[in-house]
Amino acid sequence: MNRMAAWWEKIIGRSYALRLVDIHLRGAGQVMLQNNPLTGLLFIIGIVWGAIAAGDPEPAIGAVVGLVAATLTAMLLRSDKTSLEHGLFGFNGILVGAAVPTFLVMGPAAWFLLVIGAAVSTIAMLAVSHVTKPWGIPALTFPFVLTTWFLVLAAYSFGHLPIGIMGPPQLPVAPGSSAAGADLSAGLLFSACFRGISQVFLIDNGITGVIFVAALLVSSPWAAGLAIIGSTVSVLGASALGASAAEIGSGLYGFSPVLTAIALGCVFFRPSWRVALFALLGTVFSIIVQGALNAAVAPVGIPTFTAAFVFVTWLFLLPKVDLEPHRHEPVSNGIMTDK
Amino acid sequence: MNRMAAWWEKIIGRSYALRLVDIHLRGAGQVMLQNNPLTGLLFIIGIVWGAIAAGDPEPAIGAVVGLVAATLTAMLLRSDKTSLEHGLFGFNGILVGAAVPTFLVMGPAAWFLLVIGAAVSTIAMLAVSHVTKPWGIPALTFPFVLTTWFLVLAAYSFGHLPIGIMGPPQLPVAPGSSAAGADLSAGLLFSACFRGISQVFLIDNGITGVIFVAALLVSSPWAAGLAIIGSTVSVLGASALGASAAEIGSGLYGFSPVLTAIALGCVFFRPSWRVALFALLGTVFSIIVQGALNAAVAPVGIPTFTAAFVFVTWLFLLPKVDLEPHRHEPVSNGIMTDK
Amino acid sequence: MNRMAAWWEKIIGRSYALRLVDIHLRGAGQVMLQNNPLTGLLFIIGIVWGAIAAGDPEPAIGAVVGLVAATLTAMLLRSDKTSLEHGLFGFNGILVGAAVPTFLVMGPAAWFLLVIGAAVSTIAMLAVSHVTKPWGIPALTFPFVLTTWFLVLAAYSFGHLPIGIMGPPQLPVAPGSSAAGADLSAGLLFSACFRGISQVFLIDNGITGVIFVAALLVSSPWAAGLAIIGSTVSVLGASALGASAAEIGSGLYGFSPVLTAIALGCVFFRPSWRVALFALLGTVFSIIVQGALNAAVAPVGIPTFTAAFVFVTWLFLLPKVDLEPHRHEPVSNGIMTDK
Repeated sequence: MNRMAAWWEKIIGRSYALRLVDIHLRGAGQVMLQNNPLTGLLFIIGIVWGAIAAGDPEPAIGAVVGLVAATLTAMLLRSDKTSLEHGLFGFNGILVGAAVPTFLVMGPAAWFLLVIGAAVSTIAMLAVSHVTKPWGIPALTFPFVLTTWFLVLAAYSFGHLPIGIMGPPQLPVAPGSSAAGADLSAGLLFSACFRGISQVFLIDNGITGVIFVAALLVSSPWAAGLAIIGSTVSVLGASALGASAAEIGSGLYGFSPVLTAIALGCVFFRPSWRVALFALLGTVFSIIVQGALNAAVAPVGIPTFTAAFVFVTWLFLLPKVDLEPHRHEPVSNGIMTDK
Repeated sequence: MNRMAAWWEKIIGRSYALRLVDIHLRGAGQVMLQNNPLTGLLFIIGIVWGAIAAGDPEPAIGAVVGLVAATLTAMLLRSDKTSLEHGLFGFNGILVGAAVPTFLVMGPAAWFLLVIGAAVSTIAMLAVSHVTKPWGIPALTFPFVLTTWFLVLAAYSFGHLPIGIMGPPQLPVAPGSSAAGADLSAGLLFSACFRGISQVFLIDNGITGVIFVAALLVSSPWAAGLAIIGSTVSVLGASALGASAAEIGSGLYGFSPVLTAIALGCVFFRPSWRVALFALLGTVFSIIVQGALNAAVAPVGIPTFTAAFVFVTWLFLLPKVDLEPHRHEPVSNGIMTDK
Repeated sequence: MNRMAAWWEKIIGRSYALRLVDIHLRGAGQVMLQNNPLTGLLFIIGIVWGAIAAGDPEPAIGAVVGLVAATLTAMLLRSDKTSLEHGLFGFNGILVGAAVPTFLVMGPAAWFLLVIGAAVSTIAMLAVSHVTKPWGIPALTFPFVLTTWFLVLAAYSFGHLPIGIMGPPQLPVAPGSSAAGADLSAGLLFSACFRGISQVFLIDNGITGVIFVAALLVSSPWAAGLAIIGSTVSVLGASALGASAAEIGSGLYGFSPVLTAIALGCVFFRPSWRVALFALLGTVFSIIVQGALNAAVAPVGIPTFTAAFVFVTWLFLLPKVDLEPHRHEPVSNGIMTDK
C-alpha cells in the first residue's frame, strides 16, 4: 500500500489536472473519514451503480457537481492548502449534491440551488471548524446537514423547487406495539446491513453497500469491519426497539450508527477493548437518536440526514475521556485531518 | 451542622460502601444545586412518597436505577474525582430515571432505554461542561434535558416503547382570553406552590413539595426560602398572564422558576438587594419561557423538562454583570462544584 | 459631516439629557449597524410614518418604550460605557418593542411582556456577545430574535396575551409549481424593494423604506446602496425561485437579505470586487434561508424575525476568509462597535 501511495504521489506531482482529480477523490473518501483517493473512487462508483440501478442518474451527477463546486469554492476562498489536499472541502459538497436530487425534482432552479448549496457547504465547513476548534472536535458532516436542511426546507416556500420523495409534513404518531417488530431472517439482516452502509450516500442498494465496504477495506480494515458491525448492531437494535420493518430494510436506521462506529471505533480513538465498549454505547445511542430525530423533523417534512451521527459523535468526543490513546491525527487549522 | 458534617465525613471515611452511598445521595441533592447527602436522602424520600401516593412506584425505582447507572458510568470513565464526590455525575441520571417511567409505559425495552439514557447523561454532563467551560457557566440540568428529549422522542419511532402520559403531538392553539385565569384561592395558591416544587422531580404532590423544602432547609435556608418565593411568583405570574388553571394547579409553571430563583438568588450570586431584583426578573422570565417552550414542543408531543430553567439561567449568568460578588464556589474541571 | 459630528459632540457634552437622547438615537441607528444619531432619528420618523399610515400607532410607541427600557437596563447593570454610548444596548430593545404590538393585541399583560422583553434583550445582548467573543463575531440582532421568539411563543400559552396577526400554527405545504411566480412589473419591483427595507423594522410601507434609505445615506452611502441592491436581489431571487407574490410584494423576503448585504458588503468587510461577490452569495443564500425558516417556524406559528440574516451573516463571517481587509472597527468587550 505504501509503495502504491508513493507511486501515486509521484504521478500526481507531474500534473495539476491529476492533482485536482486526487483532491476530488479524497473529498469523496472523507465522507467516511478516509483520506484515500482509491476509496473515494470506489465510493463514486458505488454511487453511480446505485443511481443507475434505481433508474435515475441525477443523484450521481449531482454528487459530482456538488463535489466540484465545493472544492472550487474552497480554492477561490484560498482555504488552508493541507486541508484542501486531504479532501476536507469536498465531502460536504458531494453529500449536498447527492441529497438535493434525491429529495427534489430537478429543474433549473433546483440545479441552481444545488450549486449554491455546495458552495455554501464549504463556507459552512470553514465556519463550523472555526466554532468547534476550542474544543478540539471536528466538524464531521454537520456543514452538509445544516446547509441541506436549509435547501430542502426552502422547497416548502418556493414553487419552482418541486418536492420529490420527502415529507409530507406530519405530526409524529406513536406506532403502537402491535405494528412493531420485523421478523429478522438472515437474508433480511444481510440486505438491511449493506443498505444501511449505502445510505451514508443516500443510496438504497445492497450492492452499493458492498462496494462501499470494499472502498473502506482499501483504506482501513478497521473501518470496513466497524462499518459492518455498526450496521448490524443498528439493524438488531432497531428491531429490538420495534422500529418500522420497511425503514430498517431500507437501511434508514443504519447510516448514522455506521458512521458513529467508524468515527469512535477507529478514527478518533485507537482501537482497544475499552474503546470498543465506548463505541458500542455510542452506536446504540445513535439508533435511539435516529428514532428521536425522525420524530423531531416530521412536522417540517425533511430528512434527518446524518444529524444523529454528528450529535452523538460530538457528545462522545467532547468529554475527552481518558480511555483515549488520543486522536492519532494532526489537527490543521481547526479542521481534523487524516494524514 | 459543621460538627455533623465532620462526623459524617469520619463515618464514610471508614467504608467504601458508605462513601458510595454518600456520592449517590449528594447526586440526588445536586438536582437543586445542593451538595448535601441529607438533602439528597430527603429528596429520595419525597420521590418515594409521591410515587406511592400516585399508586405507581416505577418513577421512584427508575430514579434510583438512573442515579446508580449515571454514577457508575462516571466511575468507569474515570471522571474527575472531586466532581464525582460532590454528586455532579448523579443529578442528571436521577432525573432521567424519574422521567422515563413518568412518560413511557415500562417494559424491557423501556428499562433498557432508561439505563442507556442514564449512562449517556454522564457523558453528556462531561460534554456540556467542557463546552460551557470557556464562559465559566455550569451545565445545570441540560445534560438531563438533552438526553431525555432524545429518549422520549424515540418513543414515536419505536413500537416497543409505548407512550404513557405524553403528547399527543399537536399544533399550538391560542387559549383565548375567556378561557384564561384561575380564581386563585389561598388554598389553591398554597397547593400549587408546593406542587411546583415537587415537579422539579416530575412529582405532582404537595406533601412531596413540603418534604423537598425541608430537604433544602437542611442544606441552605436561602435555597428553601427562594424555592417557596420562586414557586409563589410563578403561580401568581402565570395566573396574571392567563395560563391554564389546571396546569398552574399541577405545578407545571413552577419547577423551572423555582430552580432559577435558587440558582440566581443564592447559588451563583451572593444574596443582596440588587441580586434579589435580578433573580426576580429571571424568575418572571422563566414563567414566560416555560409558556413559550410549552408551545414550541407541542408539535412533537414531548415535555419541556427543565429547559426553561437552563436557558434563562444561562442567559442571566453569561453577562457576568458586576452586581455579583462572584460565584462563591470553586470550579473544578469546568464543572461547577458546591463545596 | 465631520464638522457636524464635532458640533453635535459639543452640544451633547453640555447636558446629560441630550447625551441620553444621543444614546437612544444611536440605539435606533444600530439596527442597520449604523452608529449615527441622525440615522436613528430618521429611522424613528420612518417607523412613526409607517405606523400612522397603517392606522395603528402602537408599534411606534412600543418601539420607543422598548428602546428606553433596554437602554435603561444596560445602565442599571453598569454595562460597558463605550458600547452603551454607541447604542449597542438599544437596537435589540427597539425591535422587541416594535415586534410585540405588531403580532399581539396590546393590553396590560402585553405591555408588561414588552417591557420585560426589552429589559431581557439587554441581558441577552450581553450574554450572546460573551458567547460569540472567542470567534470575534458580533451578536447582530440575535438577542432580539431569541427574546422575541420566547415572547410571541408564550402567547400560545397565556390567555391574557391575545394574538393579532400571527400564525395560526400549520404544517408547511409545498406551494406547487403552478401557484408560483409573480409577474414582476417595474412598479411592483420598485414597491417591493422599498417595502423590503421598511420590513427591517417590521413596517410594510414603501415611503418608510425611502426614509430608511435616506437615513442610511446620512451615515454611509455604501450602506444605502447595498440596502437597495440587497432588496432588489431578494425580490428578483425570490421571484425566480417561485415564492408567493403576496409575500414578495410585502417585502417579506427582503429584510434579511438587506441586512446581510449591508453587513457583509460594507460593515464587516471593506468593499472590493471579491467582497462584492462574497456578499452577493450571502445575500442570495439569505433568500433561501428565509424561505427555509418560513417553513421551519410554520408548525409553531411565529415569525422568523431577522434569524435568516443572523444565521447567514454568522456563517459568512466565521470563516475569516482572507479576502477581508479585516473588520475596520474596534471590538470592545466582545461587542462589535462602530466608532
